[in-house]
Amino acid sequence: MGIALIVLAAGQGTRMNSDLPKVLHRLGAAPLVAHALAAGRALEPERVVVVAGHGAAQVEKAVKAFDPEAEIAIQAEQLGTGHAVAQAMPLLDGFEGKVIVLYGDTPFIRPETLEALAASAAEVTVLGFEAADPGRYGRLIVGTDGFEKIVEFKDATDEERLITLCNSGVVAATAETLRALLPGLGNDNAAGEYYLTDIVAAARSKGLSAEVVTCPEEETLGINTRAELARAEALFQTRMRAEAQDNGVTMTDPSTVYFALDTWIGRDVTLGPNIVFGPGVTIESGAAIEAFCHLEGCHISAGATVGPFARLRPGAELAEDVHVGNFVEVKNSTLAEGVKVGHLTYLGDADVGEHTNIGAGTVTCNYDGFFKHRTVIGANAFIGSDTMLVAPVTVGDGALTASGSAITEDVPAGAMAFGRARQAVKPGLATKLFEVLRAKKASMKKGA
Amino acid sequence: MGIALIVLAAGQGTRMNSDLPKVLHRLGAAPLVAHALAAGRALEPERVVVVAGHGAAQVEKAVKAFDPEAEIAIQAEQLGTGHAVAQAMPLLDGFEGKVIVLYGDTPFIRPETLEALAASAAEVTVLGFEAADPGRYGRLIVGTDGFEKIVEFKDATDEERLITLCNSGVVAATAETLRALLPGLGNDNAAGEYYLTDIVAAARSKGLSAEVVTCPEEETLGINTRAELARAEALFQTRMRAEAQDNGVTMTDPSTVYFALDTWIGRDVTLGPNIVFGPGVTIESGAAIEAFCHLEGCHISAGATVGPFARLRPGAELAEDVHVGNFVEVKNSTLAEGVKVGHLTYLGDADVGEHTNIGAGTVTCNYDGFFKHRTVIGANAFIGSDTMLVAPVTVGDGALTASGSAITEDVPAGAMAFGRARQAVKPGLATKLFEVLRAKKASMKKGA
Amino acid sequence: MGIALIVLAAGQGTRMNSDLPKVLHRLGAAPLVAHALAAGRALEPERVVVVAGHGAAQVEKAVKAFDPEAEIAIQAEQLGTGHAVAQAMPLLDGFEGKVIVLYGDTPFIRPETLEALAASAAEVTVLGFEAADPGRYGRLIVGTDGFEKIVEFKDATDEERLITLCNSGVVAATAETLRALLPGLGNDNAAGEYYLTDIVAAARSKGLSAEVVTCPEEETLGINTRAELARAEALFQTRMRAEAQDNGVTMTDPSTVYFALDTWIGRDVTLGPNIVFGPGVTIESGAAIEAFCHLEGCHISAGATVGPFARLRPGAELAEDVHVGNFVEVKNSTLAEGVKVGHLTYLGDADVGEHTNIGAGTVTCNYDGFFKHRTVIGANAFIGSDTMLVAPVTVGDGALTASGSAITEDVPAGAMAFGRARQAVKPGLATKLFEVLRAKKASMKKGA
Repeated sequence: MGIALIVLAAGQGTRMNSDLPKVLHRLGAAPLVAHALAAGRALEPERVVVVAGHGAAQVEKAVKAFDPEAEIAIQAEQLGTGHAVAQAMPLLDGFEGKVIVLYGDTPFIRPETLEALAASAAEVTVLGFEAADPGRYGRLIVGTDGFEKIVEFKDATDEERLITLCNSGVVAATAETLRALLPGLGNDNAAGEYYLTDIVAAARSKGLSAEVVTCPEEETLGINTRAELARAEALFQTRMRAEAQDNGVTMTDPSTVYFALDTWIGRDVTLGPNIVFGPGVTIESGAAIEAFCHLEGCHISAGATVGPFARLRPGAELAEDVHVGNFVEVKNSTLAEGVKVGHLTYLGDADVGEHTNIGAGTVTCNYDGFFKHRTVIGANAFIGSDTMLVAPVTVGDGALTASGSAITEDVPAGAMAFGRARQAVKPGLATKLFEVLRAKKASMKKGA
Repeated sequence: MGIALIVLAAGQGTRMNSDLPKVLHRLGAAPLVAHALAAGRALEPERVVVVAGHGAAQVEKAVKAFDPEAEIAIQAEQLGTGHAVAQAMPLLDGFEGKVIVLYGDTPFIRPETLEALAASAAEVTVLGFEAADPGRYGRLIVGTDGFEKIVEFKDATDEERLITLCNSGVVAATAETLRALLPGLGNDNAAGEYYLTDIVAAARSKGLSAEVVTCPEEETLGINTRAELARAEALFQTRMRAEAQDNGVTMTDPSTVYFALDTWIGRDVTLGPNIVFGPGVTIESGAAIEAFCHLEGCHISAGATVGPFARLRPGAELAEDVHVGNFVEVKNSTLAEGVKVGHLTYLGDADVGEHTNIGAGTVTCNYDGFFKHRTVIGANAFIGSDTMLVAPVTVGDGALTASGSAITEDVPAGAMAFGRARQAVKPGLATKLFEVLRAKKASMKKGA
Repeated sequence: MGIALIVLAAGQGTRMNSDLPKVLHRLGAAPLVAHALAAGRALEPERVVVVAGHGAAQVEKAVKAFDPEAEIAIQAEQLGTGHAVAQAMPLLDGFEGKVIVLYGDTPFIRPETLEALAASAAEVTVLGFEAADPGRYGRLIVGTDGFEKIVEFKDATDEERLITLCNSGVVAATAETLRALLPGLGNDNAAGEYYLTDIVAAARSKGLSAEVVTCPEEETLGINTRAELARAEALFQTRMRAEAQDNGVTMTDPSTVYFALDTWIGRDVTLGPNIVFGPGVTIESGAAIEAFCHLEGCHISAGATVGPFARLRPGAELAEDVHVGNFVEVKNSTLAEGVKVGHLTYLGDADVGEHTNIGAGTVTCNYDGFFKHRTVIGANAFIGSDTMLVAPVTVGDGALTASGSAITEDVPAGAMAFGRARQAVKPGLATKLFEVLRAKKASMKKGA
């Protein structure tokens, strides 16, 4: 049976104390809502609908950036989860499979759990969990006749409150069932909201089957405050670090390496302390990243060494055995095999050929205030320290630029380019200048 | 009744194993003594006296830097807390209100606690705490007749040792009481010291009232070793981080953000991992600080983005929507709205106008070895990469400097300034040079 | 009696999931095997033999780098610890003292423990430990007749399994005993391996004496997975940090300072958060290292200040009161007393004289693509910002270089050197250029 996802992402998240919609706060360098989407995408759903409300325009933009094929339904008023799902249903017109309803602020749900929900033969399936401390969670009532209903804590009898099987809020149901039952849900409760969970009792009352699928409590963790967000980040990072270790990644201090949702790192990669990954980083086996690096949207090939104090930004592509050293920034640039960029350099919008050496203090002047331009450097070239490469410009294979040069015109292969003044020396001038300044300083002190 | 503070800060702190006086070791980027002073200042005292002894000159300098109106009393010999307070009393001549005696190595006391001490109607009030493990603390003996006395552990009976209400050492008393009782304190004890705490028994024996005010044990935490200092720093940071989260600040990993005593951060500010605040930082709502930043004495306005790898030093003022990027240092400079300084730049003693773009590798040459000079850059200007701005110098509105230029004279508005040599190309020269060097290297290897 | 060490380092470490031999994974910035070697070296052994197998060439290289006098024995097939020791014995020909057998993957053993083993009067001495959870460790059977034998867990009786004195695997024996007994060890066990520990029963059966020496369990910790390696690193760092605090070092957050095995730091040194030490760092009393520094193979003298964001590489020698500031890299260079290098600089292969000031953006151009060359700068010189020092080159005492200069020839003492073009200004040109670019951008947007 085909799958469709509905991700509820309309809430404001008052307790976050933020102007940013809750589902756009970041976890693993991705908006919260992306985590549920990523777990759901693993099931290859036919349709994905995100229900937005507060900050809908922002949410739509973030969702589309992460998942361009997701569709957005608008829930203008927040009238409950049942109401939210009802807003999504028109976008599922013609879909006849199973619908899984997830939450944008519940990032830890695993694809395996969603697969179990999808595989359930019941018309309605609820994801439950054994709560360590059931507290005020809704309880799942499973009798001799199977899954009967969900009871809110405040409506539960003392006996029911002893039950530890709790409601995560995640529901799977056939599209047909949703279409049949959603219109009949009421809002006759304290909050005056339409609850999706009422669908269980509704289904059972019509003789439809209902079932509970369970997962570890951790997967159902929702986020309501910044402190909870920070704890969720810690949990996310702990998982990613352990997984990386199992995959053969060495980290000096795992607690100081920050993974993004999509970070991919090969075997025998070594990571020093204090490394921050933004989205979109892949690192091949055997590369070494030293301490204090900030990497985002980049690819690092086998044998490459990066850092300490390096920043790789989106579009940085490092081929094998490339070295990017300290205080170096690389953006939207390809560095071919064996390129060395050791110190204090900015490479933006550049292509650098094999085994070329980039001297300290080099800058690709890629921006004129209005447009960005590319710099192309050939193989086996030697860019002298403090070379300004005023793009668009090309330096040929095996060419050399003198240190301190501004290169404004192309340099042919094998040529040497100078763009600096010849040295002139004024004997004794420094001594004289220092004497004048020293005297001035002394007189000022005297005057003071 | 008016308030005066006496802060005892004369001890050496032998167990710190340091040449630095104990109260000058730093917590939250401020000397220890500043914490007690800050808590006390919240009561708006009429007088503040710090009693210095070991390293008195250093202590005086640090105290004056933090609190210019505080006065310094010298305790040449360390003869006990009663003796220390006696040294301070002459500086309170004419003061008739309540005196609170604090400790320079006890940084966690809260203003609310001091207010309770100030509000006590008794002639002598002692700050006590319920100790989780009373150990060798002095015990506060409260009988049917009220607060009777403080008993040192070694003098306590078995019954008294069961008491868990312990002595923090913090005392509040009217100036009159102190003047009357301090001269009568004895030093007939093992250490041969005059103890301030003996004042309780002295007061009671003269029919004066005494009272206990309590606070959580944590507030009374003193610091005696570097390991205790590190634990105190951890406790201080934990508090500051939680407070920031409550105020709507997002931190990827709160445990890697280091606040100073006076850091102020607005709502919806995001802080990446690994941020260090020195004293005097304020950040307005909605600014974003990326990973690996070091900020001190600076103001960051709404919408500004900083880092990663940025250093803002005292006097850096960033207006709205300013961007300061990687490997950039800003000191004693104002950056007007929308200024961008993206990469590898040093701005010192500069004023930069609205929407000006500062290219990578720019340096304000503000120091001639004797004097510092200012650089003024107008609005909508474009400073090319690797521009040396040799101060004092002015670049006008909408002006442009060619990359790689040394700017030694003012540039009028709308003008373009060049300070670089024209490029010259020597065809084939690089090839020839490399051949010579390669041959030399080969011959050396052969010879080796 | 003389001492010889045998360090077993032949295993692959399958559970590390790595191509790198296990003993070469790093702990405290040194290969694992170096830790056992360092502990053993403290006893001033006459001979040191490392038994290598998997990745023997790599292991030999790493061992020789750390301990040039260590000899390497090859164990081509891994047939057990007894077999491994037998491969080492030929290299001990003529040695008649006591042999201690250590493990390359057991880094926490202390010299004091090895001294106790060396001091044992028995022919065979085994290092045991009281296990908190004995689990499947081998048990040491000590009867009324003294140390009898080692029993593997699977061969132990229920009664023997109650014993908590366990086998660390570390053995000391006279060379004579090893020569006599090793050839007789069998491999009649499940793994078909020759176990060194069988030597105890063999010795007793021949009437030789055997003894147990014990140490805390922590010292016997072996490393088998990357997660264990990360935990061992954490344990190592915890020890080093506590030791530094005891020695009078202040750390803002000890948990973010990463020591190497040989880091040496004096009293009253302050370390900010996030400092990484590679091998070979010594820091004298009273120096201050700010946040975000990466230090390796360098010496920092009293009163020097480093960072934030500084990188010192091997051969960086900082004399008293030197200041190395942000985004500065120093390699293989000596900085004499009072030198200041504040910002964005690369100093490689340089000697800088007393009280010289190095401007922001300075680079020593020390590499021509084939050879490295030295830069020599005198005392009291002033290197202007963005000076390129094209080595080999010398700048004399009290000389000055203009900012933005390429210095290709020597500068005499007291002289001022210019290597930059004179400034030219084109009035109105910036305005015109921006108009053209703005128009182009507008037309492109229109077209789009």
